[in-house]
Amino acid sequence: MSKQEDLFKNVISHAKEYGFIFPSSEVYDGLSAVYDYGQNGVELKKNIREYWWKAMVQMHENIVGLDAAILMHPTTWKASGHVDAFNDPLIDNKDSKKRYRADVLIEDYCEKLNQKAQKEIDKAKERFGDAFDEAQFVATNARVVEYKARQKEILGRMASGLESGNLEDVKALIEELGIADPETGSKNWTEVRQFNLMFGTKLGASAENAMDLYLRPETAQGIFVNFLNVQKSGRMKVPFGIAQTGKAFRNEIVARQFIFRMREFEQMEMQFFVRPGEEMKYYEYWKDTRLKWHLSLGLGKENYRFHDHEKLAHYANAAADIEFNFPFGFKELEGIHSRTDFDLKAHEQHSGRKLQYFDPELNENYVPYVVETSVGLDRMFLAIFSKSLKEETLEDGSTRTVLALPAVLAPTKAAVLPLVKKDGLPDLAQKIVDDLKWDFNVAYDEKDAVGRRYRRQDALGTPFCITVDHQTLEDNTVTIRHRDSMKQDRVDIAQLRTLINDEVSMRNWLMKMN
Amino acid sequence: MSKQEDLFKNVISHAKEYGFIFPSSEVYDGLSAVYDYGQNGVELKKNIREYWWKAMVQMHENIVGLDAAILMHPTTWKASGHVDAFNDPLIDNKDSKKRYRADVLIEDYCEKLNQKAQKEIDKAKERFGDAFDEAQFVATNARVVEYKARQKEILGRMASGLESGNLEDVKALIEELGIADPETGSKNWTEVRQFNLMFGTKLGASAENAMDLYLRPETAQGIFVNFLNVQKSGRMKVPFGIAQTGKAFRNEIVARQFIFRMREFEQMEMQFFVRPGEEMKYYEYWKDTRLKWHLSLGLGKENYRFHDHEKLAHYANAAADIEFNFPFGFKELEGIHSRTDFDLKAHEQHSGRKLQYFDPELNENYVPYVVETSVGLDRMFLAIFSKSLKEETLEDGSTRTVLALPAVLAPTKAAVLPLVKKDGLPDLAQKIVDDLKWDFNVAYDEKDAVGRRYRRQDALGTPFCITVDHQTLEDNTVTIRHRDSMKQDRVDIAQLRTLINDEVSMRNWLMKMN
Repeated sequence: MSKQEDLFKNVISHAKEYGFIFPSSEVYDGLSAVYDYGQNGVELKKNIREYWWKAMVQMHENIVGLDAAILMHPTTWKASGHVDAFNDPLIDNKDSKKRYRADVLIEDYCEKLNQKAQKEIDKAKERFGDAFDEAQFVATNARVVEYKARQKEILGRMASGLESGNLEDVKALIEELGIADPETGSKNWTEVRQFNLMFGTKLGASAENAMDLYLRPETAQGIFVNFLNVQKSGRMKVPFGIAQTGKAFRNEIVARQFIFRMREFEQMEMQFFVRPGEEMKYYEYWKDTRLKWHLSLGLGKENYRFHDHEKLAHYANAAADIEFNFPFGFKELEGIHSRTDFDLKAHEQHSGRKLQYFDPELNENYVPYVVETSVGLDRMFLAIFSKSLKEETLEDGSTRTVLALPAVLAPTKAAVLPLVKKDGLPDLAQKIVDDLKWDFNVAYDEKDAVGRRYRRQDALGTPFCITVDHQTLEDNTVTIRHRDSMKQDRVDIAQLRTLINDEVSMRNWLMKMN
Repeated sequence: MSKQEDLFKNVISHAKEYGFIFPSSEVYDGLSAVYDYGQNGVELKKNIREYWWKAMVQMHENIVGLDAAILMHPTTWKASGHVDAFNDPLIDNKDSKKRYRADVLIEDYCEKLNQKAQKEIDKAKERFGDAFDEAQFVATNARVVEYKARQKEILGRMASGLESGNLEDVKALIEELGIADPETGSKNWTEVRQFNLMFGTKLGASAENAMDLYLRPETAQGIFVNFLNVQKSGRMKVPFGIAQTGKAFRNEIVARQFIFRMREFEQMEMQFFVRPGEEMKYYEYWKDTRLKWHLSLGLGKENYRFHDHEKLAHYANAAADIEFNFPFGFKELEGIHSRTDFDLKAHEQHSGRKLQYFDPELNENYVPYVVETSVGLDRMFLAIFSKSLKEETLEDGSTRTVLALPAVLAPTKAAVLPLVKKDGLPDLAQKIVDDLKWDFNVAYDEKDAVGRRYRRQDALGTPFCITVDHQTLEDNTVTIRHRDSMKQDRVDIAQLRTLINDEVSMRNWLMKMN
């Protein structure tokens, strides 16, 4: 097992053991690709959501919030293109009864060609050493050239089959390439067919008069259909944004990688409405601003990178992802998309209503252009959680597990520990808890030796441990231990509130964005 | 139209006009009994949710949170009884094609008998004046006695038909009573049949291997199936609670009364796990504590009352509602239920797993008993919003509309207004906004005369208006106007943050619970 796989297994087991994430309905053996957030997970998730909300809504006078329902009128999804085009091409193996995404099977085949080409490159590199000119080799070596050309041809044929709807061509391609079921080796395939990823349900009491609904596959459309309601009732002037957090649902066939790709997940999205022609300015602004937000959490600049889309979705004229260095490599964390006026115009067409803005400065009506920023809340959780989980070797050679969460997001801000369970120390510790809990999530822990209690709080990500000892009885001072440095300071009880607040307040962390 | 109906219409139109609540998917003519929260509604809703969370989770060391998914393993709903018994008895009129709840038709018929009896009572009351003994009259007047007896008989027959599943008896009762379609007068009815209120959906890619799922009709079961995961990973000791907020879905046939009964709604629930035999103690504790929470918001003690259930649900051994005086009368706002060990035992049976707690003090294993507190978040919203909306006549005879929300819950805490749009006042006002927005939601408004701006903020529920005038340029003071009293004080800019914080902080409001 690779080091990365090891780390990822650790992340999953730590998340369960310490009450961050449980498999959903675990007593019934779970529900695939659905997870529940436990007592610590719910607090971390709430804090991430709130940190985003404050940065986007509270700090921007021209951004307001929205909380649209999960259930929407079904024409919404006709207009957005989801009814017709939100599909995965699936193929079944008749022998194994296993189901696969046809495009993934073909892409995996191409990846093998890629690896073969890489092998040739690596061999040559070894042979020629410093003198090796990779670009020239790739362009001229017959085998490498052939591998690359073959890949391009295959992917091109697949794309044209999928786009034109000629799924029999995709099936033919799989057979021609001799692609076998990766688990059993069987080549006995069914036809390829498109499967819509939206969860359907029915509103109403009987089959005859029921209305077919969908669980929303994205939160964005709730913003678009409310665009005029918000603009008018809030007297908003372009440019302005509408922000929303909420659940979305996708009936993924192959959902993997823990909470990275779930069937039920939460998005944090903002749609920014601008004058047509000004969208690139704001696209650049939001790329920059969103990256600053991520960096303010202090997980390390090297863990983020932009990936500009070469192939754009039908609604976009520019798109980039902020990728994060997850335990399984760099993957999309947030998308910043310039969506043009595609969505508002589509809703105009399907609803027969105008979705236009009257610009008093230009003295004209137009359908605004839209720049979207969209983060997966669960992915943010996974990014922060996995990067914070560390095994440290201490000076004395022993190891400790520490969840070095940004203090602003930690589920519990401080644990109060009586050094011993006697001499009135528990009562005094409890009094400190009763005082601090008005302002923060605080824990009380009296079980086991104090060293073990420190380790437990380290594993939970608690930034501060406050220890009440015999000296406290004399001078009202306690020790405060810092999770990351493990340093302890002696401070007056009366100082605790301010001291903790300075380190955990969203206000102070948001200031790091500037 | 009655005064109450008038008030309710005002509530609905004010909610839309000021960006609190929009009909869902309004551009597509809406989706029945589903609503979206607008830019101000989302903030009020967030604040209510957070106020509940702080009171329940942050302030109680023995209560922790949870965020279980909406999608759960379907056996969950078999165990909970929802698959078999979460039904409404429906009947269709063959002529009008209208659909009704059979039980509601019969109850409406009984209500008419009730009104007839009341007429007799009122007549007698008028005739006898002060000497009238109502109890004696009701017990002895032949007509009143007959109306009451008839009602009792009808409701008894209906209940036994529904409980035994003999729906043909219910149909027969409707025909015997001559109940007609209230809209058309037709008596041409279909059979009565049970309709399950859960929304169904399918997980998986094809009809053959799809798994039938439900959108959860309540959040409680997510807590029960996670009981042991939370207890063990959080090392919780009985008594302890698990709190959760989240969406639930019910395919209501007749959903009415704005956001009071919606098909998609949000619950705020806490399940408190106790030793068997101690449940009544905690039942009383939570009735008392939850009422205190409601009262802390200052909407008036007279608007709340307890309603103890006489007829208990199959899982309960005691149950009470906190009812609120809505625009359409006293209705359930929160339920406090002693649910016994019904749910945990049902999940033990259906999962084959033990859901027991080892009590170290008693040195024994048991399935805990559960006391539940469950508020509808949307109902809380409606309660607060409707009670806060007031038309006031001022001293000068003019009227104003004020949304006197508890300041802790107000969407925007302060609006900063330059008296005029020149002389540098806008810049100065903007500087104050830029300073305060780190801590609060603040608005900037420079449009229209200042009096109109005050009115607009009154209608939005903003507790403070801060006005920047020419004196501000000289001495750094501003006026701060209080929404409810409309009084203005002159204060130093440097005081604003503390002054506002004292009035809006959750900490200070929660202290009112004690």
